[in-house]
Amino acid sequence: MVAMTVRTPDPNPGWLDETELAAARARLPMIYVEAIPVRLDDFGRVVQVGLLYRADASGHFRYTFVSGRVQYMQSARDALMRHLEKDLGPLAMPQLPMSLAPFTVAEYFPYASSSGLTDDRQHAIALCYVVPVRGDTQPRQDALQVAWLTPEEALSSEVTDEFEGGRGKLVTQAMAWANWGV
Amino acid sequence: MVAMTVRTPDPNPGWLDETELAAARARLPMIYVEAIPVRLDDFGRVVQVGLLYRADASGHFRYTFVSGRVQYMQSARDALMRHLEKDLGPLAMPQLPMSLAPFTVAEYFPYASSSGLTDDRQHAIALCYVVPVRGDTQPRQDALQVAWLTPEEALSSEVTDEFEGGRGKLVTQAMAWANWGV
Amino acid sequence: MVAMTVRTPDPNPGWLDETELAAARARLPMIYVEAIPVRLDDFGRVVQVGLLYRADASGHFRYTFVSGRVQYMQSARDALMRHLEKDLGPLAMPQLPMSLAPFTVAEYFPYASSSGLTDDRQHAIALCYVVPVRGDTQPRQDALQVAWLTPEEALSSEVTDEFEGGRGKLVTQAMAWANWGV
Amino acid sequence: MVAMTVRTPDPNPGWLDETELAAARARLPMIYVEAIPVRLDDFGRVVQVGLLYRADASGHFRYTFVSGRVQYMQSARDALMRHLEKDLGPLAMPQLPMSLAPFTVAEYFPYASSSGLTDDRQHAIALCYVVPVRGDTQPRQDALQVAWLTPEEALSSEVTDEFEGGRGKLVTQAMAWANWGV
Repeated sequence: MVAMTVRTPDPNPGWLDETELAAARARLPMIYVEAIPVRLDDFGRVVQVGLLYRADASGHFRYTFVSGRVQYMQSARDALMRHLEKDLGPLAMPQLPMSLAPFTVAEYFPYASSSGLTDDRQHAIALCYVVPVRGDTQPRQDALQVAWLTPEEALSSEVTDEFEGGRGKLVTQAMAWANWGV
Repeated sequence: MVAMTVRTPDPNPGWLDETELAAARARLPMIYVEAIPVRLDDFGRVVQVGLLYRADASGHFRYTFVSGRVQYMQSARDALMRHLEKDLGPLAMPQLPMSLAPFTVAEYFPYASSSGLTDDRQHAIALCYVVPVRGDTQPRQDALQVAWLTPEEALSSEVTDEFEGGRGKLVTQAMAWANWGV
Repeated sequence: MVAMTVRTPDPNPGWLDETELAAARARLPMIYVEAIPVRLDDFGRVVQVGLLYRADASGHFRYTFVSGRVQYMQSARDALMRHLEKDLGPLAMPQLPMSLAPFTVAEYFPYASSSGLTDDRQHAIALCYVVPVRGDTQPRQDALQVAWLTPEEALSSEVTDEFEGGRGKLVTQAMAWANWGV
Repeated sequence: MVAMTVRTPDPNPGWLDETELAAARARLPMIYVEAIPVRLDDFGRVVQVGLLYRADASGHFRYTFVSGRVQYMQSARDALMRHLEKDLGPLAMPQLPMSLAPFTVAEYFPYASSSGLTDDRQHAIALCYVVPVRGDTQPRQDALQVAWLTPEEALSSEVTDEFEGGRGKLVTQAMAWANWGV
C-alpha cells in the first residue's frame, strides 16, 4: 500500500494494483463513462441501437453498454474514446459528443440502490452519452458481441429486462433524449 | 490502511482518514458536485448570481462555488443538498434540479490541465448545476461569505479572473446555459 | 383581410380575427409553448405530474398539457406564464425554467404526421417544458380539471393512450428527461 | 388573398405569395431553424466555426448563421437539412442533431427587442443548433461566403459585434454549450 501514498505522477498513474483498487472501491465512488452506440440516418434520427452482450455462466444473454472507468489524470473524452475503441474495435468511427454534458448521470450502488441501478463491485457514477457510429464494429474481447437493434427492439421489455445492473431504463432515457418516435 | 480493505459497509463508509484520502487522491479521480446559486425573477430569468468568497492569506479575495465531494453510497442529490446547506446555511431554500444532467462536467487536474481548470489536491470531476435559491443565505463557515452579484458583474473579468481553480469560465457557461441576456 | 397587411404595430398586434387566423393556419406553422406541471420533493425529484383533462362530447376523458400559442411580439416566457395562469389559476406559483432550451420540440401535423403527434387545426411546433408548481391549481375554464398523478400513473398506458394529439409520448420524454426512476 | 383561406392542402402549401407572407409577418411569429456549422476533432472538440458572411451595401462584412423558415407541413429536420444544403452546398455532409432540443431558442423582434436580437422583417423564433460538418462547403448563393474561424476568433468582439441581428451572443452560447475551452 506504500505506493499509494506517492503523490507525484508515476509512469502508470491511473493503474492501481488489484488490492488497492478493491480497497478504494469499498470507500469511494468510482467515476465511469458509458456510451450507447447508435446509427443515424441523414436527418439525425436514430435507426439502430448497438448493444453489447455476452452469455453469462448459465448461457443467458446479458446486455450492456460501452462502459469503463475514467483513470487518474485522464480526461472524460479520452476515457470515452479508449472504451469505445476497446469495446467496438478500431474501425467503428465513433462521433464523440460536442458537449460533455451527459444525457443523464447514472448512479450504481452495490446494495440498497435508490436508483434501481446496481453494480456488485462498487458505487459508480456514470456520465452517459449516446454516440453515433459510422464504421464497422468488431469487439476486441472474444466473449463480447455487438447486436444492432431497431429502437423498437431495444426498447422492448424482452431486451430492457436483460440488461446488466438495471441499465435497461437508461435505454429508455437515451431514446427519449434523442426524440426517438416523436 | 487495513480498514480500507473492508468491503462490507461500516458505520462511516464515506469517511476515509486523512492518510487514506491522500492516497486515493493520488491515484483516482474524485467525484464532486458544484452549484452556482442564483436568484430568479417570476419568469425564470437570472437576476442575481451568488458567489462564495473568502480572503486568502494575503488578504486577496477569491471566489468559488458551492462545491463538495460525493461520498461513498451517497446519491448526487444528497451530496448536492448537503453541500448547499453547509455553504449557504439552513434557510437558503435551494431548488434542486429536476434533471441530474448537469449543464457541464468540469474536469480539474493538479497539473498539466488540458481544461484550464486546476485543483492542487487532486484530479476532480465535477457535475455542475445552477441552483435557484429562494431564502436567506448564511454560510456556516466563519471565513466564507456570499456575494450576490448581477449577472453582468459576475461575468466581468474583474470577477471571473478571481476564481479559484479557473472556475470563472464556468460562470460564463452557466449564464450561457441559462440564456442570460438572450 | 385589409388589416392584415398593416405592418406597423397596432393596439392588439397578436390578435387575428377568426378568418385571418384560419387562413394563416392553412399556410404557416404556428408556434406554441407547452408545459407539464409537476410537484417536486426537496431533492428535486418529481413526485406528482399535473395533467389537464376534460370530458369530450361522448363523456370520454381526454388528457392534455398546459398549451397555448405564442402571440405576435410576445416572448416565449410571457406566453408560458400567461398560459400557465390561464390553465392552472393565479395561485399555482409555477417556477419557469431558467433555460429557454426545451426538453423537446413537439411537431403536430393536421394529417400525414411523421411524428405521431396530431392537431386537426394546424401544423404546430411546440416548445415543451416541465414546470414545477408550488401553489394551488384551480383552472379558470369551467370544463377543465387538473389531476395530480404519480409518475407511475402518468406513465401507465391507460393514461398515455388517452392524451389529445398523441401527447402521451411526451410524458415519457418528460419523465425520462427529469430522470424519474433512475 | 383568397387562396389564403383555402384550408385543404394545396400543391405548394408552404409557399405564400409575397403579399401574404408580408401580412402574416405583421401578425404572427415566424418559426425558424438556425445552425452554426462547426468542424470537430476526433474527440468531439470544436476546432473551427463556420460563419456565413456577405458584404452589405456599404461594403461592410456582416456575419450570420445558416438560417431559414420552417415551411407549412415541413418537419424541423427537413427544414434544417434544406437550409444547410442551400447555404453550405451539397457536399458539406452535415451531421444533424440526434435530439431536436435546441441548445437555445432565439427570439428576434422587429422593434423593442427584450432579447437584444432583432429582425427588421418580423418576430421570429429560432431553434438553434450546432451542426458538425465533415465535407466541403460551397455556398450556392453567389454573394454569400463561408469563413472557417477558430473558436477564439469567432468569440472575439471584432467578430461577434459584426453579426446580423445581434447573433454574436448566440456564438458565445453555442461555444459554452459545446464546452469550448473547458
